[in-house]
Amino acid sequence: MQKDIDLGALTVGVVGATGAVGAEFLALIAASPGRPCRLRLYASERSVGRRLIVRGDEVPIEALATGCFDGVDIVFFSAGKAIARQWAPEALRAGAWGVDNSSAFRMDPAVPLVIPGVNSDAIDSCREPSIVAVPNCSTIIALVAATPLHRVAGVKRMVVATYQAASGAGAAAMRELETQAHDFVQGRPLKSPIFGRPYLFNCFSHNSAIGESGYNEEEAKLLLETRKIWGDPQVRVTATCVRVPVLRAHCEAIALEFARPLDPAKAREILAGTPGIEVVDDPATNSFPEPIVAAGRDPVLVGRIRGDWSLEPGMGLQLFVAGDQLRIGAALTGLNIAREILARTRVAR
Amino acid sequence: MQKDIDLGALTVGVVGATGAVGAEFLALIAASPGRPCRLRLYASERSVGRRLIVRGDEVPIEALATGCFDGVDIVFFSAGKAIARQWAPEALRAGAWGVDNSSAFRMDPAVPLVIPGVNSDAIDSCREPSIVAVPNCSTIIALVAATPLHRVAGVKRMVVATYQAASGAGAAAMRELETQAHDFVQGRPLKSPIFGRPYLFNCFSHNSAIGESGYNEEEAKLLLETRKIWGDPQVRVTATCVRVPVLRAHCEAIALEFARPLDPAKAREILAGTPGIEVVDDPATNSFPEPIVAAGRDPVLVGRIRGDWSLEPGMGLQLFVAGDQLRIGAALTGLNIAREILARTRVAR
Repeated sequence: MQKDIDLGALTVGVVGATGAVGAEFLALIAASPGRPCRLRLYASERSVGRRLIVRGDEVPIEALATGCFDGVDIVFFSAGKAIARQWAPEALRAGAWGVDNSSAFRMDPAVPLVIPGVNSDAIDSCREPSIVAVPNCSTIIALVAATPLHRVAGVKRMVVATYQAASGAGAAAMRELETQAHDFVQGRPLKSPIFGRPYLFNCFSHNSAIGESGYNEEEAKLLLETRKIWGDPQVRVTATCVRVPVLRAHCEAIALEFARPLDPAKAREILAGTPGIEVVDDPATNSFPEPIVAAGRDPVLVGRIRGDWSLEPGMGLQLFVAGDQLRIGAALTGLNIAREILARTRVAR
Repeated sequence: MQKDIDLGALTVGVVGATGAVGAEFLALIAASPGRPCRLRLYASERSVGRRLIVRGDEVPIEALATGCFDGVDIVFFSAGKAIARQWAPEALRAGAWGVDNSSAFRMDPAVPLVIPGVNSDAIDSCREPSIVAVPNCSTIIALVAATPLHRVAGVKRMVVATYQAASGAGAAAMRELETQAHDFVQGRPLKSPIFGRPYLFNCFSHNSAIGESGYNEEEAKLLLETRKIWGDPQVRVTATCVRVPVLRAHCEAIALEFARPLDPAKAREILAGTPGIEVVDDPATNSFPEPIVAAGRDPVLVGRIRGDWSLEPGMGLQLFVAGDQLRIGAALTGLNIAREILARTRVAR
């Protein structure tokens, strides 16, 4: 990953600046070392005219309109699929790169789907400013952990169960969970405008549409995106995606099946030496990845590293991982994609 | 299962009557149809002399002592491993059956490990009043769902990820979670005397000891108990056991691999026709098993029934299940074991 790239020469646009991921992106920009980049913020009509304070500067929120990206180098889209489909072409017309956090372009064969540190080279196929897609949060967190092991042992099959936070459904979903805690304590009925069921003290199957296969979209993304990112149309991935009452970090139980043997000690060594991963795996203190510890931090926490005793020795591993959904699952990966683009090109004008 | 067995002629002892499982057991006894059984309650020294009200009757709490089970027909033990080891022999000496909810005797080859409806016949090996063990809650909930499919398709391997409630760690753990909600709302620091980490808005690896394999005891139980209950030393089970901030029902994501093909439609039909299971599986309304819906109810809820697309067609299924940890995971299974014993013998004197 290109962590030391100076963004200072860039003008960066943020579409969806007032959302949960947009806010995280601005916080990461504000905390970036080096010269500050110029910022242009965009949001829905009702936010236009408001000003956000970033690094002490007031930055006005602009409307999306023809020509709105003129002079911008990289536009970060985090405002859903429909906005991305409509406005990413406008970014390209303005000569800007588009880094899209939605699912609009992820499976487009012409669009690189990139996790920096995993498959940054996919950006090399771009000969001019292009759209680069940020994978889904669950895919990013799983593949940051699984890819270094895949490189050595060749993952043939991956069985995933997720423990997903409210933040994946946006800032309002996080408020819904917190409000339910207040209502529970006050003895009031729990209100559930977003999820339509109690979230506090409950779990429920991920609220994305279910296809004919019986898998929901979140689960399908884990399969399809992994195949694209690893460039391996044969790899098999099955998942059960579940929301748990957690605010902003996802966990995943991951069972890996290998083509070549890899023992747990070697796996631990590989994971500990991988940038972006923090091994948290201490049976003596029962210290393992927890969402509350991953929240607000950059690394994917990896623990419970053990040989899978239901497979031939060395031929499988089990992991439990945690990663901040807003950060590594979205905004940080988007920012790191911008850094990878900058390292490969001279986008600044 | 022998649901209609009248317990009225029995004297039932309950060891651990003031605990979370003991209280649930008494509630189930009170709600049982037919003539009321006689009750004898036992708890730790500090509760002796207190009286619990069951079906309007005040029942005194007695001390455990030599001769304390004289005249009792079946003793239900739910007071941990050490108490069971010490006092179950006393029940046998008094000529009573012992139904033990702890892990003390589960893997003893001479002790039947029974889930009524799954392997009730294991009790047939007892020629006289004996100890019968209640499996661990996670095992019960998984096998109530998986066994009817296993009978048809032959489960070769099972990959489980659990979403476990506070109740498995006792009534005090449930209070710890609720108290943390209060403290969060009041802006006070969260207190964690039991789990030693925040539980509200968090998940963490199950707090049981981790062995050399890297698996914790809860995960090992799923393997070893499944092998014993199914009488199949070859079946492979791998699990990741995780606590989620839920009060009293466990969920499990279960990936089954079969020896013989079974399609999802047939599996749904089999599950829907199995007593003790309620199929909750409606993509149109996103209705699937939820712990808050399973809580306080008897059946194991089974949903997200789908063919595993990472295996050959028909050779695997994925499920998501929810079951009340205190009820089917402990007290109800214990009570149903008592009914099975009664159906097979004439224990009443």
